[in-house]
Amino acid sequence: MKLHSHELNAFCINALSQAELPAEDAQAAADVLVTTDMWGIFTHGTKNLRGYIRRIRSGGIRKDARPKIVGEGPAWAIVDADSAIGPVGSCFAMREAIRRARSAGLAYVGVRNSCHFGAAGYYAAMAAREGMIGLAMANDTPTMTVPGARGAVLGNNPIAFAVPTGEAHPILLDIALSSVAGGKVFAAATRGDVIPNNWLVDSEGLPTTDPRLFPHSGALTPMAGHKGYGLALLVETLSAILTGASIASQVLSWSFADASLPTGHGAAFIAVDINAIMPAVTFKQRVRQTIQEIRAAPNAKGADRIYLPGEMEWNRYERALAEGLELPDDVVAELRTLANELSLDWKWSKPH
Amino acid sequence: MKLHSHELNAFCINALSQAELPAEDAQAAADVLVTTDMWGIFTHGTKNLRGYIRRIRSGGIRKDARPKIVGEGPAWAIVDADSAIGPVGSCFAMREAIRRARSAGLAYVGVRNSCHFGAAGYYAAMAAREGMIGLAMANDTPTMTVPGARGAVLGNNPIAFAVPTGEAHPILLDIALSSVAGGKVFAAATRGDVIPNNWLVDSEGLPTTDPRLFPHSGALTPMAGHKGYGLALLVETLSAILTGASIASQVLSWSFADASLPTGHGAAFIAVDINAIMPAVTFKQRVRQTIQEIRAAPNAKGADRIYLPGEMEWNRYERALAEGLELPDDVVAELRTLANELSLDWKWSKPH
Repeated sequence: MKLHSHELNAFCINALSQAELPAEDAQAAADVLVTTDMWGIFTHGTKNLRGYIRRIRSGGIRKDARPKIVGEGPAWAIVDADSAIGPVGSCFAMREAIRRARSAGLAYVGVRNSCHFGAAGYYAAMAAREGMIGLAMANDTPTMTVPGARGAVLGNNPIAFAVPTGEAHPILLDIALSSVAGGKVFAAATRGDVIPNNWLVDSEGLPTTDPRLFPHSGALTPMAGHKGYGLALLVETLSAILTGASIASQVLSWSFADASLPTGHGAAFIAVDINAIMPAVTFKQRVRQTIQEIRAAPNAKGADRIYLPGEMEWNRYERALAEGLELPDDVVAELRTLANELSLDWKWSKPH
Repeated sequence: MKLHSHELNAFCINALSQAELPAEDAQAAADVLVTTDMWGIFTHGTKNLRGYIRRIRSGGIRKDARPKIVGEGPAWAIVDADSAIGPVGSCFAMREAIRRARSAGLAYVGVRNSCHFGAAGYYAAMAAREGMIGLAMANDTPTMTVPGARGAVLGNNPIAFAVPTGEAHPILLDIALSSVAGGKVFAAATRGDVIPNNWLVDSEGLPTTDPRLFPHSGALTPMAGHKGYGLALLVETLSAILTGASIASQVLSWSFADASLPTGHGAAFIAVDINAIMPAVTFKQRVRQTIQEIRAAPNAKGADRIYLPGEMEWNRYERALAEGLELPDDVVAELRTLANELSLDWKWSKPH
């Protein structure tokens, strides 16, 4: 189904308001989810709205949450997100990182008592809009094994960064530290496909091509083996060990666990104020030089161009703005069910 | 050949002193190289001493270099390494990051005009010894392709982190962002082996199993495809774009390029003072809880235990201390050649 992204945004705000989220919080969450869909990352966009609202209604996400700073220094802060919906505590924390970076040059803000924050890249891009390098990361309930283990040991802890380029959009990487995101495994299971044998291990810790084992008797593999395992532990350290958030198996699944319980996610946000360190114009010239060199590299046989991290996502974003946002059927089905559950209008004008 | 690590250390200092490096700088470089060998990372240890000394003698590495701070704020600094041997500018920068983190909570120190710094993990571990989380990273001359390209586009930019545990040694991850390090490809070529088809691309950008193509007509693949590519660009940003160092193809190979020229490497070091953010005792308790949970995970079929990042390296380090350091033949050959070139004593007592 193709629709106007601003109508989808209004639908999300409407739904969240029905669940009694304050207007400002509903707007923040809607913007995160719709932007993510516009990037084409449908596993992390409005598809999850229904699940978030279930948690709000059951109390696991607090609709009246007030994220607050519980520890601070000139270049850092720890935020207690008060079990707010993920985007609310995360936007609060990244704004705080940006504010502190403006005076200190860079800043780290860690978050505890958060929930699933959606696409990490959204928060990294917030910093880039302010002329800063942004990083965002979070821990999650274990779905990923580690070398030598058979079951899930760590979350596939996402990490994202954004770098301003002087062009319309920043360089933007947003990745899970598993070989592939869990959503891709679910999608293969739904389609009845087999998967490559390096995505998942079975209940004995051995490679499997059966996506149906996930998550109950299979675990995602870390990207690049011990490298993804190690980086996931770094994300766990900065997001959870150092912030007071729940760690590893203490973190509840935002989608599967009892919706009346807070999930306890942790997150971390870093902003580096380029202009404090190097004149912004020099930095942008140097970024452009780097981009030009990458783009000018001879293409591999069969490839027609080289993309920058995030470039495909920004292309989709621009297309969604210009031509309307084409939502996949599984997303539409969730939104339609939610509309029924909340007795929301299901009317969309047709983009042309 | 098995020897005492302290004798290898003295040999390195002796060799570097012959090349007229000041005593303090020779000691710093020797400690980096010998520690790396003790971790079993022989591609980045004393095997490279002869190449470094060739660059010192030809002027590409300045024996009288004086690294200095050329820009600073409370939580950051930019260091011009003055084309010092890599470990000298890098230790200077990490010490500076630690010092600033002690007052600001965390600090970033970027470096330009550096050279190949050896094993990134050494510098990350410096921070951990001070009770801090440490990160170290650097750019390098391009040896790695990116999705869609056929040749080398970026360095396989190493990144390392260390986290104090309250035990004898920190968690320590030190990785290149290529699927495998170039040294493993060289080793396969020397042995006459074929390599897995996901390590290298040929001159058309297609997978190859022939290690002999590297580096002249083959390029390393990024780990996990676009994920390794993106992370390498993050390292390039923090190490080079933001520091004024040479970028991508501007960086010269420390081993292949004209030894009279500075290589222009960049690097970045980050220290996070745990005790500023959370009582160190609480942090260590939380790290231990995480470690225990990882270690207690059921083993995969055929695996007998789960290692923490760096644990194998620290085990080798302890064994080298207790029983002597077993150097592989290729390292011994380089050291022996160097001893001949510099007319150094080649006498080693036998560890028992």
